[in-house]
Amino acid sequence: MGRMTSFPTVRSAEALEQGNTLAPRFDANGLIAAVATHAETGEVLVLAWMNAEALGKTLETGEAHYFSRSRNELWHKGATSGQVQVIEELRVDCDQDAVWLKVWPQGDGGACHTGARSCFYRVVEGGKLVRK
Amino acid sequence: MGRMTSFPTVRSAEALEQGNTLAPRFDANGLIAAVATHAETGEVLVLAWMNAEALGKTLETGEAHYFSRSRNELWHKGATSGQVQVIEELRVDCDQDAVWLKVWPQGDGGACHTGARSCFYRVVEGGKLVRK
Repeated sequence: MGRMTSFPTVRSAEALEQGNTLAPRFDANGLIAAVATHAETGEVLVLAWMNAEALGKTLETGEAHYFSRSRNELWHKGATSGQVQVIEELRVDCDQDAVWLKVWPQGDGGACHTGARSCFYRVVEGGKLVRK
Repeated sequence: MGRMTSFPTVRSAEALEQGNTLAPRFDANGLIAAVATHAETGEVLVLAWMNAEALGKTLETGEAHYFSRSRNELWHKGATSGQVQVIEELRVDCDQDAVWLKVWPQGDGGACHTGARSCFYRVVEGGKLVRK
């Protein structure tokens, strides 16, 4: 698919919500939110962003691709770290402005650049962050 | 807290990622992504947005508040539908630009305005959407 990846646009709420056409609604920056959970444990691993190319590559390869907002480029998760995320299932939400990936983390099983298994390694308790 | 809700700003990556200060990084529109999962089953229920007021109200009341981008207003989830989401736990990610809520859905247990239990009721299979 490469850079030419495109998806159809669906305008009717009925078709968007009840239809069988994948018609992701990218925002003004061309991005859609993507949440990845561990296929077995259900733990939320990472919340990231996809542009049309990243979503296309994810569907084409079966491995999670995101769009790095900080580097402004396509990001094949794990290409450097080995923490490739193999897709078990990909879902879209009702109005198709978010996707949910159930993934199998490869490499050391981590997902976060800090070395943590999940990016969500801190809980808010009493207004402060507690690692747990 | 009301409209005056504010959070500190932390600029160092070290403090942001490893510190105990809740310093959410709202985007240019003043929003942060929030993913809610079912506290018991782990199912992803909804991916929505919070502004500082919504995050403040969520922490203050123990019930999920979002910011509705379509209505451009604070949205106390369930205030109309009864599908209040009682917070079991609230986490932030490494760079504090996303939050993960583990919630107990009230009312009829649903989360989606379509009547579905989760907004993510369709899987992408062979390029098409399949309800399951």
